[in-house]
Amino acid sequence: MERTLIKDLGQKVGEKAFIQGSVSVRRDQGKMVFFDFRDRSGSVQGVVLPKSEAIETAKEVRSEYVVSAEGTVNKRPDKNVNLDVQNGDIELEVHSINILSKAEIPFELGSDVNLDTYLDHLPFTLRSEKSKNIFKIQATIAEAFREAMRGRDFIEFQTPSIVGGDAEGGAAAFKVDYYYDQKAFLATSPQLYKQMMAGVFERVFTVCKIFRGEKHATTRHLSEAVCMDFEMTFIKDHTDVMNMLEHVMKHIVAKVIEKHGDTLQNMGVEMLLVPEKFPVLKLREAQEILGVSQSEPDLEPEHERALWEWAKKEHNSDFVFVTHFPLSKRPFYTYEDEEDRGYTKYFDLLFRGLEINSGGQRVHDYRELVERIKGKGLDPEKFSFYLEAFKVGMPPHGGSSTGLERMTARLLDLHNVKEATLFPRDLNRIDSLLSTDEK
Amino acid sequence: MERTLIKDLGQKVGEKAFIQGSVSVRRDQGKMVFFDFRDRSGSVQGVVLPKSEAIETAKEVRSEYVVSAEGTVNKRPDKNVNLDVQNGDIELEVHSINILSKAEIPFELGSDVNLDTYLDHLPFTLRSEKSKNIFKIQATIAEAFREAMRGRDFIEFQTPSIVGGDAEGGAAAFKVDYYYDQKAFLATSPQLYKQMMAGVFERVFTVCKIFRGEKHATTRHLSEAVCMDFEMTFIKDHTDVMNMLEHVMKHIVAKVIEKHGDTLQNMGVEMLLVPEKFPVLKLREAQEILGVSQSEPDLEPEHERALWEWAKKEHNSDFVFVTHFPLSKRPFYTYEDEEDRGYTKYFDLLFRGLEINSGGQRVHDYRELVERIKGKGLDPEKFSFYLEAFKVGMPPHGGSSTGLERMTARLLDLHNVKEATLFPRDLNRIDSLLSTDEK
Repeated sequence: MERTLIKDLGQKVGEKAFIQGSVSVRRDQGKMVFFDFRDRSGSVQGVVLPKSEAIETAKEVRSEYVVSAEGTVNKRPDKNVNLDVQNGDIELEVHSINILSKAEIPFELGSDVNLDTYLDHLPFTLRSEKSKNIFKIQATIAEAFREAMRGRDFIEFQTPSIVGGDAEGGAAAFKVDYYYDQKAFLATSPQLYKQMMAGVFERVFTVCKIFRGEKHATTRHLSEAVCMDFEMTFIKDHTDVMNMLEHVMKHIVAKVIEKHGDTLQNMGVEMLLVPEKFPVLKLREAQEILGVSQSEPDLEPEHERALWEWAKKEHNSDFVFVTHFPLSKRPFYTYEDEEDRGYTKYFDLLFRGLEINSGGQRVHDYRELVERIKGKGLDPEKFSFYLEAFKVGMPPHGGSSTGLERMTARLLDLHNVKEATLFPRDLNRIDSLLSTDEK
Repeated sequence: MERTLIKDLGQKVGEKAFIQGSVSVRRDQGKMVFFDFRDRSGSVQGVVLPKSEAIETAKEVRSEYVVSAEGTVNKRPDKNVNLDVQNGDIELEVHSINILSKAEIPFELGSDVNLDTYLDHLPFTLRSEKSKNIFKIQATIAEAFREAMRGRDFIEFQTPSIVGGDAEGGAAAFKVDYYYDQKAFLATSPQLYKQMMAGVFERVFTVCKIFRGEKHATTRHLSEAVCMDFEMTFIKDHTDVMNMLEHVMKHIVAKVIEKHGDTLQNMGVEMLLVPEKFPVLKLREAQEILGVSQSEPDLEPEHERALWEWAKKEHNSDFVFVTHFPLSKRPFYTYEDEEDRGYTKYFDLLFRGLEINSGGQRVHDYRELVERIKGKGLDPEKFSFYLEAFKVGMPPHGGSSTGLERMTARLLDLHNVKEATLFPRDLNRIDSLLSTDEK
């Protein structure tokens, strides 16, 4: 018999159906046994009547057993109808049940455990409704990012993870034992590659891993993270990039609401505030609002949170751009504002009080770029591969980078970015698994 | 003035237009200067007349200079119309030209250089029409893979690249210097993670990096590659996985033809042979056809090519499945065929003479899996994280893994898989670039 997905059982009232899935709950009432079955599409109540041939197996089944079951879809008596839940007006009268996999669980699924216990048992804890929702929404965010980019003529490219040469000192880069004692590192960002690729395709994006060996344990840092980057040429200045990013963010939020609106509500997520235009502040303006010194080169986490309060109050916005960070603290490729010397056409995008994106215009002139590299005390010779892209002609360009886990965490109001990461790696944690070779 | 993309110039005959792009060719005819301009959308001829104010700058411009130009779109005189090329019936009479970036090129773009020279100059050589087409088609392959999977209820997940513990000896795994002397490696496959995730979502896919430190230089191996993996539960056996993969492959081929049919023709790619059902051979049947010993545990590259000839001739197919490799040579999670003991419900998919995919049914029973791990001389204790997924209930499942670069290379008849890799890493090559930290 063909499998029926649980969400479609309502269309088979009075008919036989065959389902496959897990047992969320079993209630043994002596003569009868009740189940909550679930599969990827939803949940339904099952009942095994006293005289059913399935009764013996039913009594053996426990929570999280994987089973298949055959039965008749019945309307529930009126007094038992619960229209607040999926399939609350039907139940499956089970005629036969087949155990596909037994289960021994460390605690009830969805238990309120601490983060360490949650992470120790990920192959189990990820199966809870909350976790599944988080990562379904994360998949939608990445999909919507790609969709928005393609809609604007951007081409996706695969950026390398293994990079050679320690061109910048690489304090935060993990070292890889490459062949024959060659030095290699894990990429801390696709930055230089996306610039080279912008020279190829004009408009490019990549969704890729970045790796950072920074030795601090916070609620917002990961050693391995996913970033959603784009780079575009023929820009007027950084505001073209900000406009593109604004479009992308709006598209992502709209898609998440469209596909997961009910879930957001069930999770108690506050309504997202997305104004027509995101507010923009120069760093010095932000510092004035915050009442902190304008000699600080960056914002502290508590400042980012305070700017969210300001943006909500003044602009009804969960997003706020901060621009014009001081040149001295920015990487060599950052473009200086000719009309505001010492400051850059660089921006951060804060979302609900956390920096989830940064970007800006880049230096595109070969000679200037060489000077800027030297100015940072670096050796242009070590950047010769990258610099070739500029030597052979490079249009004015800029781009930005969004952290997927950070965006997911803030969108769903998760306290720790690790809750928005399937298998988080940090200072203290890496699961002990070496993937095996299928090929 | 707003930018007009070059592909849209034909709609502006008699009007003024502003374009931005690169100069592919400049022909200085003394009094007049002709250009071929290109942008991401196409090419057009430009002409600078003797009395134009642009003539001085025009004489300064060289191949690959990045420029913007303003002018009038004119119909060409009939005798100069060439309908075989894009915009062959118009030209841009340039009134002003502005150099955005000068260029100094190592050789003419699109020159027929050897692979080493090509790879040494990627920031430049990737800009050729051929390279751009290869990686546009590669982007379409990955996009079509995702589209096919989503259409069948699969959810995308982010698999880790850094894995802890050297559970299998890890000869082919690159070692990473993780924090405080912790042992860590780069993932050689997402295999174990996708199995765990199948236990979460029933149907999952991932497009991810894999890393293999194998010390052989061939035309088909890369140290860093992209794989397109899926895993599905509640299967009858490996044939459910093969049917799903067949659907995915057909979808990819159809999308590539739909979006890039003309390009395939221009590149001289042979028509793709995609039958309704892909032919399936057990390894022993394939060996009989090839006339090689049935005691060999695998196929050699020349055998894979010979099977392509067979599949074309007998089944009008560029695809052929080979199943039932011997159990002794397969990883511990491979499912043994109860009706063909000693052989596995494992398959390779060959495409145009190259293995681009492998997959099969997996062991889902916890106890059996522990025994199989021990049988390989491995320590189940080291797999405890992975094994928890089975302890808490795991449905019958299977999946497969497709190499993106291999598929691209065979689809476009490229000799070396490195031609289908933007920045290939191998035994001898890694570009000297450390990405920088934008955040």
